[in-house]
Amino acid sequence: MKHNFGAGPCILPKEVFQQASEAVIDFNNTGLSILEISHRSKEFEAVIDEATQLVRELLAVPQGYSILFLQGGASLQFAMAPLNLLPEGGKAAYLDTGVWATKALKEAKKFGTVDVVASSIDKNYSYIPKGYAIPTDAAYFHYTANNTIYGTEVFDKPETALPVVVDMSSDIFSREINVADYDLIYAGAQKNMGPAGVTLVIVKDDILGKSGRVLPSMLDYQLHINGGSMYNTPPVYSIFVSMLNLRWLKAKGGVSVLEQENIIKARALYDEIDRNPLFKGTAAVEDRSRMNVTFVMDTPELEAEFLALAKERNLIGIKGHRSVGGFRASIYNALPLSSVNALIDAMKEFEDTHTA
Amino acid sequence: MKHNFGAGPCILPKEVFQQASEAVIDFNNTGLSILEISHRSKEFEAVIDEATQLVRELLAVPQGYSILFLQGGASLQFAMAPLNLLPEGGKAAYLDTGVWATKALKEAKKFGTVDVVASSIDKNYSYIPKGYAIPTDAAYFHYTANNTIYGTEVFDKPETALPVVVDMSSDIFSREINVADYDLIYAGAQKNMGPAGVTLVIVKDDILGKSGRVLPSMLDYQLHINGGSMYNTPPVYSIFVSMLNLRWLKAKGGVSVLEQENIIKARALYDEIDRNPLFKGTAAVEDRSRMNVTFVMDTPELEAEFLALAKERNLIGIKGHRSVGGFRASIYNALPLSSVNALIDAMKEFEDTHTA
Repeated sequence: MKHNFGAGPCILPKEVFQQASEAVIDFNNTGLSILEISHRSKEFEAVIDEATQLVRELLAVPQGYSILFLQGGASLQFAMAPLNLLPEGGKAAYLDTGVWATKALKEAKKFGTVDVVASSIDKNYSYIPKGYAIPTDAAYFHYTANNTIYGTEVFDKPETALPVVVDMSSDIFSREINVADYDLIYAGAQKNMGPAGVTLVIVKDDILGKSGRVLPSMLDYQLHINGGSMYNTPPVYSIFVSMLNLRWLKAKGGVSVLEQENIIKARALYDEIDRNPLFKGTAAVEDRSRMNVTFVMDTPELEAEFLALAKERNLIGIKGHRSVGGFRASIYNALPLSSVNALIDAMKEFEDTHTA
Repeated sequence: MKHNFGAGPCILPKEVFQQASEAVIDFNNTGLSILEISHRSKEFEAVIDEATQLVRELLAVPQGYSILFLQGGASLQFAMAPLNLLPEGGKAAYLDTGVWATKALKEAKKFGTVDVVASSIDKNYSYIPKGYAIPTDAAYFHYTANNTIYGTEVFDKPETALPVVVDMSSDIFSREINVADYDLIYAGAQKNMGPAGVTLVIVKDDILGKSGRVLPSMLDYQLHINGGSMYNTPPVYSIFVSMLNLRWLKAKGGVSVLEQENIIKARALYDEIDRNPLFKGTAAVEDRSRMNVTFVMDTPELEAEFLALAKERNLIGIKGHRSVGGFRASIYNALPLSSVNALIDAMKEFEDTHTA
């Protein structure tokens, strides 16, 4: 058995893969593949309705918010957020916590003024800036909740009276959130929601319709809301597999149960990193992500050797991103504690064979 | 066995479903699902490279053209085409052959002037306009090659010296084309290429970079070319299944073989429509689509009864679009002649029981 620590697209539960595989041959005893049914069929309408309802239930989405399944990933949201929320000549506030936050703010700069309220680039994004001031005259405040590359995570909603836009691509459904704290939440599916090819958007209805811009239809949240995520042909299979995964999440007991499991998994791994003299974490302790655990070795020369051992132990996807180096273990919802323990065992074994 | 005449998402070959199903459990003996591998893995790079190569080979795409797999469907292309090709204040020429052509030109109107060179709206889009003049001072000429709703198809490239942009969503890979006749070809996958969630774009490189507009990154063809369709996480599974389907197409002998089969299937069905006194075609004979065959009954009261018989015979998806009524049989590449014959048999049977 392989332990998939990949950063995304990433592991999903085995039973989801099983169901997802069967539906490609025969979907719900229709005698048809899920890949050949019309998105306007009652069978698929039931899928997208259930997926929407599961998101609403699992995150306790309040009334007044719409739930959308779109295409284009977070990268398209980087443009859709300003185009929908920022009037011509307007200003938006962004927190810079890494590559993805930077991409988001660069995209916004194409369409208005961007006030970067704080950045942790001075220490290679190894921490989350704190104590910064958010201007009160901006159209919205944007931040990235979890920084996959650097292994940092923002757990508390930043304090501001502005509308808050958050990229939760890599930590949505991993911990409880209060949706009412946010005005626009977006997340590429390919971490904790489903396979690549669909993007979740949760948007407060009454922030829309104020930018006054002429928008490409596909970039207009309101049109997607009006069309129930079926303004055009949606990514049928990615939505279907997401629905299966959300069902799994609900059957597990919901987000609060997963959050507890994720805390346990993350603590176990960080404890080993802190204990094991060969390894050290790269992120500020108080900002450590529960989704992506980044660590390096005191002796970088040994890193290739540890990667070889990891491969031998079927621990895959743990090579760190080139901007940080070392290792990154992504421990999303579907990764079991036993996989984390297999990694810890390998770290201990490596310690045994490399310390006197 | 069901005969899937659905207009899209639609039938794909059984063997493609089989392989697509297996890969969700174990992709290429990696021990991992195709849904959980990184898009940056060498395994997926091989998939997208093969898919690109298959498109290049099957359509004999010349040098100087790029092949892209994007998200957002043809609907996003309706905006991307003008945003990438039309300078501010510029003019584009559009042929209006139905709902999708109209959506494309309405989208273009947001970004410039649109000259509608001809329209067949006067006869509910039941024919393709001919003999129209295309202005020489437009940035490009746009048309829809196949009109799924009305069952009409443009087989010859319209004569113009302008760059030609064509929506081939519903007939790409169904007949041989000379790619060099076009400057931008786009096609939502969910007819003859693969499942929903990916869009094929074939673009002549040297028409790009001239609109002078500030584009959302995800709407910029050049960025996607630079990133090899991986500017961001691509729709992995939709591309994978498209690749499997293109392999099938190649193994069948390529587009020319499919074109001959499609001609035979279409002829058989149109012949029956013309012969059977109960049915009549809705599209002008010379413009009849080989992909979507639209027909009605002289006695509309009998239509519900024929639909019931069709259901009994496992002929599904033949109810016509509400704008045309009656019936629509979509007979894409993967639909076998035996399914067409099953429909013809039902039509004959209906004739036998309803004529004296």
